[in-house]
Amino acid sequence: MKESLGAQTLIIPTPVWCVGSYDSEGQPNIMTIAWGGICCSDPPCLTISLRKSRHTYGNIMDRSGYTVSVPSSQYAAEADYFGIKSGRDVNKFQESGLTPVKSDLVDAPYVAEFPMVLECKLIHHYEIGTHTQFIGEILDVKVDESVLDEDGNPEIHLVSPLIYATKSHFYHGVGDQVGKAYDIGKKFG
Amino acid sequence: MKESLGAQTLIIPTPVWCVGSYDSEGQPNIMTIAWGGICCSDPPCLTISLRKSRHTYGNIMDRSGYTVSVPSSQYAAEADYFGIKSGRDVNKFQESGLTPVKSDLVDAPYVAEFPMVLECKLIHHYEIGTHTQFIGEILDVKVDESVLDEDGNPEIHLVSPLIYATKSHFYHGVGDQVGKAYDIGKKFG
Repeated sequence: MKESLGAQTLIIPTPVWCVGSYDSEGQPNIMTIAWGGICCSDPPCLTISLRKSRHTYGNIMDRSGYTVSVPSSQYAAEADYFGIKSGRDVNKFQESGLTPVKSDLVDAPYVAEFPMVLECKLIHHYEIGTHTQFIGEILDVKVDESVLDEDGNPEIHLVSPLIYATKSHFYHGVGDQVGKAYDIGKKFG
Repeated sequence: MKESLGAQTLIIPTPVWCVGSYDSEGQPNIMTIAWGGICCSDPPCLTISLRKSRHTYGNIMDRSGYTVSVPSSQYAAEADYFGIKSGRDVNKFQESGLTPVKSDLVDAPYVAEFPMVLECKLIHHYEIGTHTQFIGEILDVKVDESVLDEDGNPEIHLVSPLIYATKSHFYHGVGDQVGKAYDIGKKFG
């Protein structure tokens, strides 16, 4: 029996991604989001949604680019902090002790200590309601060599990304392998 | 040291969600996607991206609505099957033995056996490249009573959603709790 919980942004899983940008003073900023996802294969694009009031909103509009750094579980507290404070009030890189690195492809910084980084060029934005959706073309994916598998792909348990459980407000890690995609479904024909 | 892996749709985590729709004959269809996410808080909206060639593409355009059913890990093979076959060739509900339920809010079916369902009214679509991005307003979230916690929220390990590791093409479950959001970051100030 299903219970109706009403119209709300309640789904799982959602990601925990840290969006890097520079403000008008050139100060690096970083904020954590859960509203986002891949939105096109070619050109490869990633979408993120932000409130207009966010410091990062103006930064992206001004500089037409952003990065997404994927925190590993060991940096859960830092990632959480990046979602609590505003870059208008504090330099979150300085306070957390993490290192901003200037992207050589877009006008935005990423987090050196996080294992996986995407550099995105803004190609479209669309206002929905409280949130503006940004669509960024992924110009490069940079990954720590130490988290690559033998095929040169990120190994999910080495990257150790976070999953956000909306509503209960807990971060989780990634669990066991359940099966191979494009394979375990073949039993149905 | 970070290695540059090029411009590609490589990020983790991505979700495993099953999109329900009716075709022009009224036959229920279901397809699995990983390109999507929440995109606005108010109105609550969820975005999914599809290729124009997909059967579901025309269905959503014609009927201006879709559902997203979240498969639990025990239905990983069914979810995988929904991403392999086209509803033009087979009735995937019939072949998998799962049950389509007509939404009473949008003109689309959802999967009775999956623990969590969102009913979405199409409010915008945008062509990017290979993919069209659909933005759907979430009209309701329906959740099996058996997976609700004592506060009436979905308990993530009871829902047991899948995570998709792009590139390595494996499904994973959800791991241990890492920390409380808006809380563990407070140690930085």
